[in-house]
Amino acid sequence: MTVRVDLNISLDGFATTTDATPENPFGDDWGRLVAAYTATRTFRERVLHDTSGEGTTGVDDKYATAYFEGIGAEIMGAGMFGLHNFPDDPDWIGWWGEEPPFRVPVFVLTHTPRAPIEMANGTRFEFVNPSSPQEILARAQTAAGGKDVRIGGGPTVAREFLRAGLVDQLHVGITPIVLGSGIRLWDDLRGFEAGYRVTTETDPSGTIHVTYRR
Amino acid sequence: MTVRVDLNISLDGFATTTDATPENPFGDDWGRLVAAYTATRTFRERVLHDTSGEGTTGVDDKYATAYFEGIGAEIMGAGMFGLHNFPDDPDWIGWWGEEPPFRVPVFVLTHTPRAPIEMANGTRFEFVNPSSPQEILARAQTAAGGKDVRIGGGPTVAREFLRAGLVDQLHVGITPIVLGSGIRLWDDLRGFEAGYRVTTETDPSGTIHVTYRR
Repeated sequence: MTVRVDLNISLDGFATTTDATPENPFGDDWGRLVAAYTATRTFRERVLHDTSGEGTTGVDDKYATAYFEGIGAEIMGAGMFGLHNFPDDPDWIGWWGEEPPFRVPVFVLTHTPRAPIEMANGTRFEFVNPSSPQEILARAQTAAGGKDVRIGGGPTVAREFLRAGLVDQLHVGITPIVLGSGIRLWDDLRGFEAGYRVTTETDPSGTIHVTYRR
Repeated sequence: MTVRVDLNISLDGFATTTDATPENPFGDDWGRLVAAYTATRTFRERVLHDTSGEGTTGVDDKYATAYFEGIGAEIMGAGMFGLHNFPDDPDWIGWWGEEPPFRVPVFVLTHTPRAPIEMANGTRFEFVNPSSPQEILARAQTAAGGKDVRIGGGPTVAREFLRAGLVDQLHVGITPIVLGSGIRLWDDLRGFEAGYRVTTETDPSGTIHVTYRR
């Protein structure tokens, strides 16, 4: 029953991109950042509902599969859910459509009250305004029923939980591109690696997988 | 006859550390940053003149060996030579003692005139104040006599040559620690990877070797 973070970052440490527009809300850089992940068979099946069996099945896919295994609840920031992009749209249900890949309770951190969204596949988005990371983590752990809790992101939320010492396992997939701007995962985390064991592994795609485990 | 850069950086991209003192001019962080490199057999032989045959011989050592192979001249900044630490010492000969590992002409970039230093092992430090990276690179290439030229560092110098499009091969050894401060290699290098092929490889030490080649 661990607390996990998984993020894709650039070689220069950015977990967000800055070229999004209202017409292109992911921007071109986001596609470059997550290209190896979105090419995996697991992503295609789980997120795109593509049952053709296509997609990569190497090291990147091993991590993509592990991403979804054993998670019983998720915590994510308002930005990851899309509330910064669509703050005034009461019908916004997140980026993932009617079948979000989570299939578990998802707690979305926001100061703005919003009605829960229940999906047919077991995903339930609940909008919460906790007083501390510890408070919402305890709630998510109860909801997870003995399974793991993921801090989904974005980087500001992930960093808050890392700084509070609440994360048992951090996995980053590093894409070897230099973005130059965005939100850096590593800011204010000097020395956070103390107390973790680290393993590193690469995929022929160029992605570098770094995992810190307590 | 390529132009090469090799640097050790932290996971958050820092190629320098900030805990140095006059009494401890490398600081503790520098030792952590380069621990896997200084543990290699090649480093022990070539830099420490330790002929015991001890030291690691894995992936890290493969890169350490390649570091010295085929280099005919080197360009380095004043800081890498130590002139920021010992600006007023006319007898300062660099960090490496009487047998520096270079064994080739080394051009040290500085605004302050200084007499060349000739070592018995073929290393010759010449102190230069070029008007452009292109100018000193042309001079170093002549001195290299058909061999490769290394831009030795520090990160500010390496970045200047990278930004000018003068580098054919960039290798970074990434140590999975978060330093939090120093000089970042990747600043102002957004998109530099265009035109390079990238390969990534890891050592059980945790070091991630990323190489960009034209």
